[in-house]
Amino acid sequence: MLHKPGVTESLARSLVAARWDDIPTPVRHQAKRSLLNFFAVALAGCRSGPVEIALRSLAEFSGGRPATVIGRTERIDALGAAFLNAAGANVHDFCDTHLRTVIHPTAPVAPALLALSELRRISGPDLLLALILGNEVQARIGLAISPSHYSRGWHITSTLGVFGAAAGSGKLLALDARQMVWTLGAAATQSSGLCECLGTPAKSLSVGNAARNGLWSALLAERGFDGPLEPLAGVQGFYHALNEVPDLSLVTDGFGESWEIMATSYKPYPCGFVIHPVLDCVLDWRRDHPKTDVTRVVVRGNPLLGVRTDRPDISTGRESQVSVQHAVAAALITGKAGLEQFTDACVGDPKVQALRGKVEVERDDAFSTIAANVAITTADGTVHQLSQPAARGSDVNPLDDAALEAKLRTVAAGWEAGYDASPLIDAIWTLDKRADVSGLAAMAVPPD
Amino acid sequence: MLHKPGVTESLARSLVAARWDDIPTPVRHQAKRSLLNFFAVALAGCRSGPVEIALRSLAEFSGGRPATVIGRTERIDALGAAFLNAAGANVHDFCDTHLRTVIHPTAPVAPALLALSELRRISGPDLLLALILGNEVQARIGLAISPSHYSRGWHITSTLGVFGAAAGSGKLLALDARQMVWTLGAAATQSSGLCECLGTPAKSLSVGNAARNGLWSALLAERGFDGPLEPLAGVQGFYHALNEVPDLSLVTDGFGESWEIMATSYKPYPCGFVIHPVLDCVLDWRRDHPKTDVTRVVVRGNPLLGVRTDRPDISTGRESQVSVQHAVAAALITGKAGLEQFTDACVGDPKVQALRGKVEVERDDAFSTIAANVAITTADGTVHQLSQPAARGSDVNPLDDAALEAKLRTVAAGWEAGYDASPLIDAIWTLDKRADVSGLAAMAVPPD
Repeated sequence: MLHKPGVTESLARSLVAARWDDIPTPVRHQAKRSLLNFFAVALAGCRSGPVEIALRSLAEFSGGRPATVIGRTERIDALGAAFLNAAGANVHDFCDTHLRTVIHPTAPVAPALLALSELRRISGPDLLLALILGNEVQARIGLAISPSHYSRGWHITSTLGVFGAAAGSGKLLALDARQMVWTLGAAATQSSGLCECLGTPAKSLSVGNAARNGLWSALLAERGFDGPLEPLAGVQGFYHALNEVPDLSLVTDGFGESWEIMATSYKPYPCGFVIHPVLDCVLDWRRDHPKTDVTRVVVRGNPLLGVRTDRPDISTGRESQVSVQHAVAAALITGKAGLEQFTDACVGDPKVQALRGKVEVERDDAFSTIAANVAITTADGTVHQLSQPAARGSDVNPLDDAALEAKLRTVAAGWEAGYDASPLIDAIWTLDKRADVSGLAAMAVPPD
Repeated sequence: MLHKPGVTESLARSLVAARWDDIPTPVRHQAKRSLLNFFAVALAGCRSGPVEIALRSLAEFSGGRPATVIGRTERIDALGAAFLNAAGANVHDFCDTHLRTVIHPTAPVAPALLALSELRRISGPDLLLALILGNEVQARIGLAISPSHYSRGWHITSTLGVFGAAAGSGKLLALDARQMVWTLGAAATQSSGLCECLGTPAKSLSVGNAARNGLWSALLAERGFDGPLEPLAGVQGFYHALNEVPDLSLVTDGFGESWEIMATSYKPYPCGFVIHPVLDCVLDWRRDHPKTDVTRVVVRGNPLLGVRTDRPDISTGRESQVSVQHAVAAALITGKAGLEQFTDACVGDPKVQALRGKVEVERDDAFSTIAANVAITTADGTVHQLSQPAARGSDVNPLDDAALEAKLRTVAAGWEAGYDASPLIDAIWTLDKRADVSGLAAMAVPPD
């Protein structure tokens, strides 16, 4: 009898068969870019409240060979490190984004792989291949149920990220197809995370678990911990329990012909993506008009800009990430839109407060979510008309390598004054030539 | 403005307000019975494959103050112990059952509380109260979406058990209502588990996680790790993401007036509950006819008996747990229906194999799932008509205390010949008089 593999087995076989030699150069390069961005956002979040608390709690239960907590002097077991580094990377929503699913792809995957690289000998090409595959698996499993899964309130970076972390870890462990099915099943039955938690530390739990449990799924499968044959499409499997009717062709068809990591966008600013084209306009104008008194700003963009970010009255840094009034005011006052501009302190700055009240939002269906117009009126009555058709960092106007390097350097400087990011940046760009990446994560800890 | 609490806050307030003094005597006693049954099933599963593998894996990452792994000499951190003890207790499906939700209530809750009792000073009444409350919370949150949630493929013992473990742990930590809401939110965003994994070790992952993550949710909340205000009924919360329209009155109304733990049933046999009335008939008859040659058995019961357990051809111990033919044959040959009768060895016994082929199943809508008739034909042509209207262990025909004690003693004898279960049994019956239960779990480890 001919065996027709199910969707999970087919995916597992593709993962096992994938080889570094078959990965095109631009895809390899994009994986490095994703890692560069990952280290930037991990350093941005490594001292946030959720990481502080979770680290203190996990440390009470941790032992064995210690692994790196990015940006910190403390070390912890590999499962704990995977949790903390994923939680930290995602905490400011400064992550990379796979726009079609709205998955932040690298936050759950890279921490699992980096933690594993401190347990086993992993080469640079192995690490990059596993990152590409983890990214691919979570995007594909998610595409089959997008946009409905995310719309229902599932925090898709968490619920799908666990598959990415599992698949990437399984690849690093050189699992066979049967073990890879077990790994994906262990991921499926540990998949969780609710959007209701966004804006609170609880969000970090499911993101951290995605990395931790994905890694653990692969480690258990390596030891023979088996699971169901069809965890994704089985009658009581992942998709059915979620009440979804998946397009399974999106999970398996054409695997290896193109790579979802190429559709990754990277954020230049740590705030809601719909605000980005507005900030492009404002920051460009401010550079040429540094001391100009602004009396009115009218922002015109996609209706979603209004729905999500028309918030003139805010009181916390977290709220400021989804206030276009705040973003515009802070950028005009400081000339920047970095982590400092989205803090409680900046929100409470009287100058910024005053200017927030002068920003108006107009909704226009003619705009895409990555486009915006901004009209700035100055004290002399002049109206400056500005326009951004495609936000920087979006997939059609990607950040170039220099901008990603600058993002990492800027975050690193704000994190630790004495730290030189150059060795880490160099290591990432030359990863494909490294035989052992066990020291990579530890390049992003505070200097002695 | 009057504040009208949401469903999560209302539940949290009830938990915080609950006092041991208000718990009626029969409810206190039932909590002890649930613990007695828990230790029996935990000893039954403590050397199973999933526990062996998970223990070896977790031990690599574990440290800090060690806690008891029931039935074993190894010790591990409290989070790991919660995981392993829950996984082990549920592995043979020998657990207690809350029939209206089909939650196995004690497996996820008790391990979290026992692990916590090795970290903090916990009294017997505190432990029992937390067990009653954990049981109550998971049943209530589950009742609001039963039977649809379980029917969709969610492993309800896992997906709801995490709330029970969280609430019980939060009560032991004396959290306030605000922290209890955070705890329930952390549980909600970590809730996972698929029925597709039943029959495989992967099932143990979500059951173990329910205990581990529930405990961790409360420990994090104690440290100030906050979360959403309405994790259950929020617009992107637990119920909405699950695509359920919950009956929220079942979550909150009449809290403290009656207790769901009173609806717990305990299994006398480690197999599917629908087989139980059949085994009652067969074992009673066999006791009076120990050496009689049986030529035919006709079992008549609820259609579910046929749907779930009409399996004459099986090859593994795991399959035997859902084969009425095997259960009848093994009981007639050995006179027992314990763990030994549902092993690979018993399945492969030629005498049992031969008798399995002589057992027929008839489906009859007139029977409830806890009732059955059995007609046994002996070699002399006599047909013995047997009947059980309400299976032993069901809520209307509960196992008495002596039967629960016997269950624990029988399992313990099969687990470790030199072990005396009496001190553990005595400790459980006198828990309400104990000021410190830190040594309770360690009473169920192998003797030196």
